[in-house]
Amino acid sequence: MKPFDGLLIADFTHVLSGPFCTMLLCDLGARVIKLERPEIGEDSRQFGPFIDGISMYFETVNRGKESIGVNLKDPNDLALVKNIIKQADVVVENFRPGTMAKLGLDYDSLCKLNPRIIFASISGFGQSGSMSQLPAYDELIQAMSGFMSVTGEPDGPPIKAGPSVSDMLAGVYCFSAIATALYQREKTGKGCQIDIAMFDAMLSFLESDVVSDKMLHKIPSRIGNKHPNISPFSTFKCKDDDIVICAATDKLFASACDVMGLDQLKNDPKCQSNKDRLAHNDLIKAAFEKSLGNDTVANWYDKFVKAGVPAGPINNVNQALSLKVVKERDMIVKAGKYQLPGCPLKFSTNKETGTRKEAPKVNADGAKIKKEFK
Amino acid sequence: MKPFDGLLIADFTHVLSGPFCTMLLCDLGARVIKLERPEIGEDSRQFGPFIDGISMYFETVNRGKESIGVNLKDPNDLALVKNIIKQADVVVENFRPGTMAKLGLDYDSLCKLNPRIIFASISGFGQSGSMSQLPAYDELIQAMSGFMSVTGEPDGPPIKAGPSVSDMLAGVYCFSAIATALYQREKTGKGCQIDIAMFDAMLSFLESDVVSDKMLHKIPSRIGNKHPNISPFSTFKCKDDDIVICAATDKLFASACDVMGLDQLKNDPKCQSNKDRLAHNDLIKAAFEKSLGNDTVANWYDKFVKAGVPAGPINNVNQALSLKVVKERDMIVKAGKYQLPGCPLKFSTNKETGTRKEAPKVNADGAKIKKEFK
Repeated sequence: MKPFDGLLIADFTHVLSGPFCTMLLCDLGARVIKLERPEIGEDSRQFGPFIDGISMYFETVNRGKESIGVNLKDPNDLALVKNIIKQADVVVENFRPGTMAKLGLDYDSLCKLNPRIIFASISGFGQSGSMSQLPAYDELIQAMSGFMSVTGEPDGPPIKAGPSVSDMLAGVYCFSAIATALYQREKTGKGCQIDIAMFDAMLSFLESDVVSDKMLHKIPSRIGNKHPNISPFSTFKCKDDDIVICAATDKLFASACDVMGLDQLKNDPKCQSNKDRLAHNDLIKAAFEKSLGNDTVANWYDKFVKAGVPAGPINNVNQALSLKVVKERDMIVKAGKYQLPGCPLKFSTNKETGTRKEAPKVNADGAKIKKEFK
Repeated sequence: MKPFDGLLIADFTHVLSGPFCTMLLCDLGARVIKLERPEIGEDSRQFGPFIDGISMYFETVNRGKESIGVNLKDPNDLALVKNIIKQADVVVENFRPGTMAKLGLDYDSLCKLNPRIIFASISGFGQSGSMSQLPAYDELIQAMSGFMSVTGEPDGPPIKAGPSVSDMLAGVYCFSAIATALYQREKTGKGCQIDIAMFDAMLSFLESDVVSDKMLHKIPSRIGNKHPNISPFSTFKCKDDDIVICAATDKLFASACDVMGLDQLKNDPKCQSNKDRLAHNDLIKAAFEKSLGNDTVANWYDKFVKAGVPAGPINNVNQALSLKVVKERDMIVKAGKYQLPGCPLKFSTNKETGTRKEAPKVNADGAKIKKEFK
């Protein structure tokens, strides 16, 4: 049995943050009905990469859902949508704030139809307030939240995380808020409104950079792949490529030196505490790389693992997906013929099958849903 | 009323991923008892930045919790811990897999004490399998998961996201799994075991890079701040600094050109569809930057916002935290005298107060807890 078996989700979401949220609900057993524009469906069906004309962008975050094409400005379609909502547990949407209200589908109206409804919205800067009407794209949020300003090399430009982390994190937060509201509803019998902002999501990930700014009046900057408070803890050049070494304690530093045959460095009075090593980071890096340059990442990785030193290669996506752990933990699932990223939520009560239904074509379930909710 | 009022969490976590998870539970009303080593407490109490000797790293993710110092190898302390677990709803831990079992505190044993217990673990690579015993630090997971390989400039090295995203994302996933398990327990009366891996968390954020590798046999690479499928959608140089412009549609491209007075570019046959613009990205960038170089980011931002073009500055942390939206959404909370990042989970039923209790000193609540659970 899956945790969300029996739940019905009315899914108004598009592109990434919202669909990622409802995909997690779907992965855990909920029935997700995607309400899309007739014929063309939602925007991301046009986003690459494609296989045989099918968007893999769309497939990745919409597997397992049902689809019905609806025109939200057509009274007949709107009546059907309201019938679905009357029986639904959760509504999820990521339109620009105000759009659902314009359609007569705001929380207060839907509450009258279904007092138990949980109404979850994702937006760039929240449902109300001075910035709510600004358009939001992942890169804009990575930029405006300060996240990019602390990502990159000290002498290089701010860099965005490759993946759309602000979209997906907002999706995960929204999922977690929905699970929380479902629990609360079991206790109180009442639904609620959820208001997740991509900006808030990124701000919550700034760690002690917030205190550094607000309390210590030090504006955090970019430090590349180094750790702000620990040394040696960074990337280092081997013969063929870079390796990450995280020697976070005196003992691990000594072990790392042993692996590389760096007796002199290990006993250097300048390297006996983390504080000293932070002050002599350049000296350590030079000594490490002189030794590491003699062999490949793969060979050094073996040696470090055997010695219990936290170290590892910078894998490309192919190398990462080839690791044994991916298969062992069902982190690639099959949806029809497609291989997609799996679900990281692992419960002893919900054995992963590693398979999903393919994402629906637009209106694939329209006739069935119309009959069911007429 | 907060959603998790009345819940008791036995918190064995340390450093970042686990404490971030239990902080979210605490923010939403749960009582979190932190079980720490006597006297020195958990490791991250020694991590900077410090204010008057107090770790702000620790404060940021432990506000609102209670603390008791316990030696898990002392039978008396272990008996007390078991008494707490008998009454607890959730156990959370992020030791290396196997550690709880060695202490006699594995899920099966605790289930006998309390069949309703939810037992949540966070680790680098999961609780079992060929990689479970490898040490895991955030940078190592960012590297090994492929995340770093797609972050950075095409001609530069792989870059890690500045913040410890794999730790914190695993924390959010664990929080969401706990909320899910609490809901399920209301239905079934039974708890369960949760197994979150930092590696899985990062893999789930690779988007369609997974399909690109598994199905299209194209290994994704770094593309800096550009968008893989949309143009113009990147950072652009102004007079003083860079600005992000996300002109994701034909209409937005035309509007952006209007703002910059780029009539010729707007009407250029080479720029009429997204596909064409992707092919002539360099030409567009040059034309944009020639115009943008005449004014500052702040002025351009005003003009773009007025025209409805998605654009924005790359804020440093200070600029980000100074935005109105931060105050409007209580995204800085006060814990005693400290100002910390707020909670992004906003519910209509749970009005944010913007204040928290300070993080506890080691064993601050020891006497009270001993009496209560003896």
